[in-house]
Amino acid sequence: MGLNKKPSVPTMKDVAQLAGVSLGTVSNVVRGLPVGEEYREKVENAIRTLNYKVNSYAQGLKADRTNTVAVLVPNLVSPFFAYLVNDISRALTKRSYRMILYCTSYNPKLEQEYVNLARQNKVDGIIGLTYNPKLILGEGLRFVSIDRCISPSISCVASDNFQGGRLAAEKLAELGCRHVAFFRIGSVLDNEPNKRKAGFEDGCRAFGLSYDMKILEDGDDQMEWYHFLEDHLHDGKLDFDGIFCVNDVTAHINIGFLNRLGVKVPDDVQVIGYDGTRRFGDLEYECSTIVQPTKEMAEMSVQLLLQDDSAIRPPLVCLPVTYAAGGTTKEPIE
Amino acid sequence: MGLNKKPSVPTMKDVAQLAGVSLGTVSNVVRGLPVGEEYREKVENAIRTLNYKVNSYAQGLKADRTNTVAVLVPNLVSPFFAYLVNDISRALTKRSYRMILYCTSYNPKLEQEYVNLARQNKVDGIIGLTYNPKLILGEGLRFVSIDRCISPSISCVASDNFQGGRLAAEKLAELGCRHVAFFRIGSVLDNEPNKRKAGFEDGCRAFGLSYDMKILEDGDDQMEWYHFLEDHLHDGKLDFDGIFCVNDVTAHINIGFLNRLGVKVPDDVQVIGYDGTRRFGDLEYECSTIVQPTKEMAEMSVQLLLQDDSAIRPPLVCLPVTYAAGGTTKEPIE
Repeated sequence: MGLNKKPSVPTMKDVAQLAGVSLGTVSNVVRGLPVGEEYREKVENAIRTLNYKVNSYAQGLKADRTNTVAVLVPNLVSPFFAYLVNDISRALTKRSYRMILYCTSYNPKLEQEYVNLARQNKVDGIIGLTYNPKLILGEGLRFVSIDRCISPSISCVASDNFQGGRLAAEKLAELGCRHVAFFRIGSVLDNEPNKRKAGFEDGCRAFGLSYDMKILEDGDDQMEWYHFLEDHLHDGKLDFDGIFCVNDVTAHINIGFLNRLGVKVPDDVQVIGYDGTRRFGDLEYECSTIVQPTKEMAEMSVQLLLQDDSAIRPPLVCLPVTYAAGGTTKEPIE
Repeated sequence: MGLNKKPSVPTMKDVAQLAGVSLGTVSNVVRGLPVGEEYREKVENAIRTLNYKVNSYAQGLKADRTNTVAVLVPNLVSPFFAYLVNDISRALTKRSYRMILYCTSYNPKLEQEYVNLARQNKVDGIIGLTYNPKLILGEGLRFVSIDRCISPSISCVASDNFQGGRLAAEKLAELGCRHVAFFRIGSVLDNEPNKRKAGFEDGCRAFGLSYDMKILEDGDDQMEWYHFLEDHLHDGKLDFDGIFCVNDVTAHINIGFLNRLGVKVPDDVQVIGYDGTRRFGDLEYECSTIVQPTKEMAEMSVQLLLQDDSAIRPPLVCLPVTYAAGGTTKEPIE
């Protein structure tokens, strides 16, 4: 064995020593967590010099980490969920984390079951888009909630739904509308997307629009919108010149109803949805829409979930939305 | 402690004894693998009677199983991939398996990296939709390939692409077409979806259609289809009365081109796509289309991956497709 008794496999300590940084900084770099650019460079140089190999399994054992995150969504068939999971997947693999994906079908029982399963399988945390008002997370579980505030100690990440609703009103006003309507369907559960309504009402007041609304709950017959539109149609003329729909699928359904009633979109009535759904996932927008920043929501959720400072646990993070024209509004020709 | 020295936590052995079946049968039931209905009932009754709790972690250690399957797809933004992963997720959780999902962005290097990662993390197997012709799986890894035959010892699961192409020709003939075209874009890599072309040609011959085609490769300018259509337009009349497109997104793009050229779909030309894409994932079909049986493909992939009999490793499983009218063909009024 000669002079060297132990084979010289470099450790994380060796990297820290050569880079002149703390062990924690090396660990953060290795795990893809945020550190100052200067430190990152030092550590990466030391890693290359020493030819240090991350032993993720041993690291997992030592740090009580599994490098695994569970993600809960209702399904992957609704475009918004698919976009979001696609972006969460990228954010996690960029950091060498695995993603375990559970599709819950909006079933509160399944949601609880998958949370329990994820706990048992000892994931490092869960990012969940859940609908169970009684969801029990248990002690010490890292959890980031999308679109629904569960408790003040659990971070919730959402698009800025209030601002999105307000932006829809602002755009309709800009595009010449005077009397508008708001259509909503969704869970009765308290959640962030509900703020789209309040934001829209606020925007209508601010920008001088009069408004009416037709609010349905999950399970209600969507034909109620059709009848509402029919009731507001006089001699082929609709009472509204603009409609804001709580999401793009609601916009799509109501554009179908308007066609049936002989009302032309966007000539007779302009329609704005919410989500930013594109045909085939990456072609043109399905309709004019408030675009959710799914990439930024995914990045923020992953950052908040993986960071170790328990002081940084903002109860609610709202990320900026944008407006995109998608053919159901009369954009000025530039 | 009284008379009983050890606490009476029932084991899998106890279940087998009470049910009067082998340990292997209990194990299969617990893991959701196929067993005779009669045996399943016996085992489930014994589990209830004994209040036996599956210890999935210990089970994993003992049986050298992790109850985890890795799934590789390019992304979740293309509807077909999203539908497929949605259905694989359901098929796995039904069997108490976890799904680790990797999005590869069609990057052959990433595909190989994720296969290696999945091996290291000791998953029970991988279901992959991959594009790397040099993909190395290594010894002993369970792998089911979607849409691409990798080697005779690796099962490939696909829709019946040949039959799908043939069905498109049959439908166009039934709907009164005489001279049709086929539009394709895709990987130059040998894969199952390539058979759509051969099936369509076969169908054209069988059902008396004359045909032309415009085949693009990934990276080609899609405007080539536009120019092809333009070249076949004489005095506002298109040479073709039917077009079969290799997938729904190709159909969508070409319907846009036809609109620009003033050719009416379906009155002047009928269009059939392939995949079965629906608006917002579960509303109406994007176009008339050959529907891929994603649910059956997911179930079959999972069944083949998890079954233990190495004799049952069919090199290629083709699952039946169906035709769905989606407004871009002239269906007879019933």
